[in-house]
Amino acid sequence: MSDQVFGEIEGYPEGTTFESRMELKDAGLHKYHIAGISRVLGIGCDSIVLNGGYVDDKDFGDEILYTGEGGRPEGSPRQIFDQELIKGNLDLSKNKNSGHPIRVIRGFKHFEPEYAPNSGYRYDGLYYLEDYWPDIGEDGYRIWRYKLVLAPTSSLPAENSIQNETATTPRRRERVSNQIVRDPRIPEKLKQIYNFTCQVCGIRLNANGVPYAEGAHIKGLGNPHNGTDTTDNMIILCPNDHHLFDAYGFSINDDFSLIGKEGSLIVDRRHLIQVENIRYHRSKYQLAIQE
Amino acid sequence: MSDQVFGEIEGYPEGTTFESRMELKDAGLHKYHIAGISRVLGIGCDSIVLNGGYVDDKDFGDEILYTGEGGRPEGSPRQIFDQELIKGNLDLSKNKNSGHPIRVIRGFKHFEPEYAPNSGYRYDGLYYLEDYWPDIGEDGYRIWRYKLVLAPTSSLPAENSIQNETATTPRRRERVSNQIVRDPRIPEKLKQIYNFTCQVCGIRLNANGVPYAEGAHIKGLGNPHNGTDTTDNMIILCPNDHHLFDAYGFSINDDFSLIGKEGSLIVDRRHLIQVENIRYHRSKYQLAIQE
Repeated sequence: MSDQVFGEIEGYPEGTTFESRMELKDAGLHKYHIAGISRVLGIGCDSIVLNGGYVDDKDFGDEILYTGEGGRPEGSPRQIFDQELIKGNLDLSKNKNSGHPIRVIRGFKHFEPEYAPNSGYRYDGLYYLEDYWPDIGEDGYRIWRYKLVLAPTSSLPAENSIQNETATTPRRRERVSNQIVRDPRIPEKLKQIYNFTCQVCGIRLNANGVPYAEGAHIKGLGNPHNGTDTTDNMIILCPNDHHLFDAYGFSINDDFSLIGKEGSLIVDRRHLIQVENIRYHRSKYQLAIQE
Repeated sequence: MSDQVFGEIEGYPEGTTFESRMELKDAGLHKYHIAGISRVLGIGCDSIVLNGGYVDDKDFGDEILYTGEGGRPEGSPRQIFDQELIKGNLDLSKNKNSGHPIRVIRGFKHFEPEYAPNSGYRYDGLYYLEDYWPDIGEDGYRIWRYKLVLAPTSSLPAENSIQNETATTPRRRERVSNQIVRDPRIPEKLKQIYNFTCQVCGIRLNANGVPYAEGAHIKGLGNPHNGTDTTDNMIILCPNDHHLFDAYGFSINDDFSLIGKEGSLIVDRRHLIQVENIRYHRSKYQLAIQE
């Protein structure tokens, strides 16, 4: 795999505009002239185009809720079946763990006028895939949802009104950091209760007398889940089960039996868990495994 | 546990100076008037004092290699026995996982003149514990070594020469970020070879068709280990074994059998591992378990 696939492409800085998808392709910014997800097969996604292809896309400038591909007949913007975690969607998912940056390109048909270029396509810098999960889209079918967050080295795209004043070099807006602040006392309190034992598998990691476990939020923090940073939205897990839980590899029933995994969640009577949080997680899990 | 234990103490911003350890204690910045490690018992460390107590301390301003406590008779700066991962050392270790910030206070006897105040004590802002490990100190005994890194919200302490010009409000130096850049292609290549299977326990995590494993550096990156970001210094592990390996909970013999854990490392013939890297890790492991 070439050095040049992921990240900035020399000669094409943030804010560069292109007349057409073909021009984007020739410049090496986006491999395909129709598909929105450009990828290195089996490795990850190097670039996406936002151009009004899916009604569920949401764009906040420094955060994008991108819709995966598929679930609609060619040429139609409406979904008539479920999206699958395969092909472009599967490769895009891999960026969460690999940390590969994704070039974001916005097109003139992008539904969010604040960020769409007036014509053609604009390369808007690098984003990282923070998370992905299944959702029900506007048309009632499963979509795979990707949360992309602007890289610290990239700037917010210029708003259109500002951009028009300075056609050659678009001005960039200042970023406001929206890092989620987690209170370390919340997981610590629970770790003491469970003595660092995983509530799913019962393992207690210990290296030279220092135990280790992690606090996992049941309903995710941050946009769009907006779960709370409280003990009733948290369970104590070993890192392996934390990963699987966050990736909807298993979930929890109302009676604390596990779904997608053997056994039951170990729950101490001092630890109250909000059933709404469990139901939120389970609804994502059920969507994820839906055939 | 009070809200005020960890982090900034109101009324005492970075750069505040104190006449004595008693003044520091009364201000709530550091609990004890002799011990260098102030802590919330069983939870973590809230503050440390650097004041020439241990010959092995190293101070680079935005990075500190702090020496744990113990191993010497009271009043002597020289070690005559091994330090243990107990008491203050154990609680300080917990900051790596909890993420609690640590107040750093430099005293006039601090061996590093560039950063020591001319008299008394100076509160120098918040640091995070990036890592800890055992080492052999200058006197030939085991020390526990803590790597503290300046919080992004804090400034470098003023150098003494500058500070003298402006006695009341010490000037702060600009920081240069020294984040270690890791190449995501290095672990990815190995993950393909091992098909995301842990080289220690053989588990392969998989959620909805997306496999997950982590690339663990054998000899750590960054100061002072300075391991290389290459496949001959990396193994593929599940998150649980990655944690235990990094915390020296187990290690690897030259013949790839494990030490401190059953079994042998699974090694593909396409994956060459530098034996020097394994020996470096094992030397830390052997120090860690030394009675």
